[in-house]
This record gives sequence, structure tokens and C-alpha cells, in this order.
Amino acid sequence: MPHDQDIDPARARSLHTFRVRFCETDLMGIVHHASYLAYLEEGRVEWLRRRGVTYADWAASGVHLPVVEVRTRYHQPARFDDMLAVETRLAALEPYSVTFAYRVRRDEAVLVNATTKLACVDASHRLAKLSAAMRDVLLSGEV
Amino acid sequence: MPHDQDIDPARARSLHTFRVRFCETDLMGIVHHASYLAYLEEGRVEWLRRRGVTYADWAASGVHLPVVEVRTRYHQPARFDDMLAVETRLAALEPYSVTFAYRVRRDEAVLVNATTKLACVDASHRLAKLSAAMRDVLLSGEV
Amino acid sequence: MPHDQDIDPARARSLHTFRVRFCETDLMGIVHHASYLAYLEEGRVEWLRRRGVTYADWAASGVHLPVVEVRTRYHQPARFDDMLAVETRLAALEPYSVTFAYRVRRDEAVLVNATTKLACVDASHRLAKLSAAMRDVLLSGEV
Amino acid sequence: MPHDQDIDPARARSLHTFRVRFCETDLMGIVHHASYLAYLEEGRVEWLRRRGVTYADWAASGVHLPVVEVRTRYHQPARFDDMLAVETRLAALEPYSVTFAYRVRRDEAVLVNATTKLACVDASHRLAKLSAAMRDVLLSGEV
Repeated sequence: MPHDQDIDPARARSLHTFRVRFCETDLMGIVHHASYLAYLEEGRVEWLRRRGVTYADWAASGVHLPVVEVRTRYHQPARFDDMLAVETRLAALEPYSVTFAYRVRRDEAVLVNATTKLACVDASHRLAKLSAAMRDVLLSGEV
Repeated sequence: MPHDQDIDPARARSLHTFRVRFCETDLMGIVHHASYLAYLEEGRVEWLRRRGVTYADWAASGVHLPVVEVRTRYHQPARFDDMLAVETRLAALEPYSVTFAYRVRRDEAVLVNATTKLACVDASHRLAKLSAAMRDVLLSGEV
Repeated sequence: MPHDQDIDPARARSLHTFRVRFCETDLMGIVHHASYLAYLEEGRVEWLRRRGVTYADWAASGVHLPVVEVRTRYHQPARFDDMLAVETRLAALEPYSVTFAYRVRRDEAVLVNATTKLACVDASHRLAKLSAAMRDVLLSGEV
Repeated sequence: MPHDQDIDPARARSLHTFRVRFCETDLMGIVHHASYLAYLEEGRVEWLRRRGVTYADWAASGVHLPVVEVRTRYHQPARFDDMLAVETRLAALEPYSVTFAYRVRRDEAVLVNATTKLACVDASHRLAKLSAAMRDVLLSGEV
């Protein structure tokens, strides 16, 4: 995923830690692959909060950012009760969409690499341009 | 759960079969206890469909039936790929709420007994009386 | 839920805070009722950790505590991004089972009351007596 | 995703229909993007069953096929109670992995395109070659 020209790699990154729940495992004894989509979502919600806005605020104002593309690579399994960290990074900012890249880690081991592309839509699910205010937030660093 | 006077036990019952998904299991190798709440929900959605209306219709008309009480007893575990049946029965009909009772079975074995009480609320989540039309549907048999 | 004679109410209680995930909501715009079972589970896992053991340790030693009974009452809805607290309390300790009671709160408002009864089983899912060591942990306070 | 030489496109495809559950939606009023991973999983479990074996059999014999890569593109949202079809197709068969491609449709509209790559591992989660018997099943058509 190439870096957008406007993106400052040093400011585009945030870390969120969390613990694996029992219900997120499956009969293989490891975290089910779909559970990571909840982790990525939590990662970008916290990424945004560190930049002074909440996804809930944007949702309340009628702007939604539905996921339109997901790519994940699973390198190593996580297990129940593991403390994990999801590192979320702004990877691309386009007029109608934003892409985040993620690394889910347990200590230094990278368990999952992923990207998600989110489109900007209004309350009627129609594609909408990201506002200047939203772009400013997305390009900012942690406050 | 006592039978309401207006409830005809013979007509109040419907059966829905489904198969356990892989992602519904946990590291104990059995179906996670929370997965059954999805099964009960599917059971009452299908119960309603057999009576000629869809829960989606009611939701679209601004009436919701949020769950306000759940009781479940787990007798035996279910496993991945099991074919299960959920038997849903209208158990009580009150002015502002409706209670369903369930048995989740694998062949003749009863795995789970449960009841859920649903309140009737409007679009603003305020308690609302079940309309006569809704009561007629709830007291009817399969069409 | 009556207090067991051996249970010291002052030591039997622990609090765990967490934030509601986007994926835990449903089309009513509120937290889906099944999501609370994950919150309760997280509550008792943390309750145990505060007493010096992990559920993962017990699971690794071949002892499981499957949920055999759940009772929940939903008083008020929670929403995406809410910070919630789950207060977990040991409510009953019997030879083959343990019961926890819960209150899920947002600030001072109690959103959900619940109890879960867990049976003690061995690796073959056969009922097993709670060991003296397990009882000691369950009756202890936060370390 | 290129076709493997050994794959007969006419036989490599199966269709499975299912209905969207209430709990699979989110506060946007549409199916949450992570729910589709359960649909794809169900699609390939049924794909395999149509070829005479169950994933449960393979799991019971100590062979697992964990997902190591997922790619999904979301074109249109699905909603509660929609009847959907997942078309699953064997897309690539390699010595240690198998790739499936999917289209999730509502009538003729394609809602989601996806691929999942699954590695073959033994009971200790070590990479294992797909056996000749497994390859025969994977290359076969519906029985």
C-alpha cells in the first residue's frame, strides 16, 4: 500500500491494545479469522479518537464510512486471553475513500497484516466527498 | 411459563431447522452459549413468517420488539455441523409484551430450553401497546 | 439470588470497564442483546484474573466451566462507543457449580442485570467437583 | 484469480442460499461487513458437503484448513431478512493450500466478491501437504 503524498508517516500511526475474548475463539482452539475484523474496526475507531473526533460523532452527523474492501493475511494464530496490539496507520486518502493498514501483534510477533478501504457515504448510502474538515482530521497526528 | 388463556397450544408452535456454523463454536469444541441467542432470534423470525408477516415489515413500520428478558438452560452441547431444530412457541401475550418459549433439539435430544420476553416499542424506543393487528397475528396459527 | 454463607459480599465483587464496539450494534441502533453475553463472559474472566488465576490456566489444566444457565434483564439500551462497566459478583458456590451475578452500568444507570450458572466439567465434558483450590480462589477477594 | 490447470470450471462451482439474521446487521441498518466471513465459511462447508465429505470429518481426522488470506470487495449492502446466495468456486489448488472464490448475490445483483486462501495444517498447526484423497475431493464435482 503506497503512502499518499500528504500523509506524514510519523503522525499517521496509532496503537491500541486489547485482550482476546473467549467467545472469539473457535473449535481449532485459536481466534476465529472473522474476529480480527472486529479488532481492526476497534483499531480505527481508537485511531480516530486519538485525533479528537469520534466515529460516533460522524455517524450522528449522517456521514458513514462503510468498509468496501478488506485484505487480511494471517501469519500466526492468536489464542484466548492473549494481550494483542493493533497498530493502525492511514495508508491512502482519496476524494471518496480512505484506506487504513493494520498490523495485529502479540509482543513483537506480527500475527495479521491487513488493509481496509472505507467509502464515504451520506445517510442514504450515496457516495459523498470527504469534507475538508474530515480530511484535516485524517491527516492529523494524535492530539 | 403458564399458557395465556387466549393461546391455542396447537397453533402456537412452529419448527425451524438450521445447521451449526464453524464460527459459532469455541475452544471447548462446542457451540458457544451466546450463539443460541441467534438461533432463538432466527426461530421467532421464522415463527412470525409462518404466520404471514415478517419482522422486517414491523420494523419498517416503526414498531420494534426488543428483547427485555432472556432465560436459557443448557442441557447438552451442540457441535459444529450439527443439524438442529428450534421449536418456538408463543407462551404469553400481554398488553406491552410477548413471551416466546423455545426448545433447541438435535433429533429427539433437547439441548437448550429458553424463554425470551420482548417489549413492544415505537421508533423512539418508547413502550407501545401491541396493536390489535399484531395480537391477531401472534395468536394465529401457521398459514 | 441468595448469598452463600461462605461468601463475603465485600470481597466477592469486581468491576471491569470496556467500550462498546460498532459490530455489537444492530439495525435498531442499539447494542444487540446477545452482545451482553460476551460482556458478562469478559466480566467473569477479569473477576478471576483479579484473584490471581486465569480461566485460561484452568482450561489448560483440563477443567472447564461451561455456562449451563443464563438469566438477563435488559432495562435500558447501550449504544456504540458507550463506556460501560460490568460489575461481577460471586453469588453462589455449590459442589459442582458456581453462579455469578452481574450489573452492566453506564455511569450510575443499570442497563442490564444478569446471572450465569457455570458447571464444572473435565476434559470429556463430564461433571466434576470443584476442587478445594478452585473454591479457595472463588471465595477470595482481589489480590 | 487464475484457474488452476486441473480445475474444471463447470464442476468447481456450487451454490448455497441462506437468509440474513437480525443479529448480523449493524447501526447503519445493513449487514455488518464481518458477517460475510461467516457466509463465505458456510459457503465452502456446503461446497465440500456437495462433494461427499464434511469439513467436520477432516477436522476430526486432525487436518484443519485455517484461513490464511481473505480478500473481499463490498459492492452493495445486504439487509436483514434478505435471501442471499453464495456461489463458491475452487479457484486454485496448490500443494499446501487451496483458494476459493465467492460471489454473494441477492437475485442477480452481486453484493460481494471475495477470495479466501486456506492452508492445510495438522493437529499441531504445522503446515501439511494436501493428501491425494483431499485433492481428489477438491477437484471433483457435486455428487
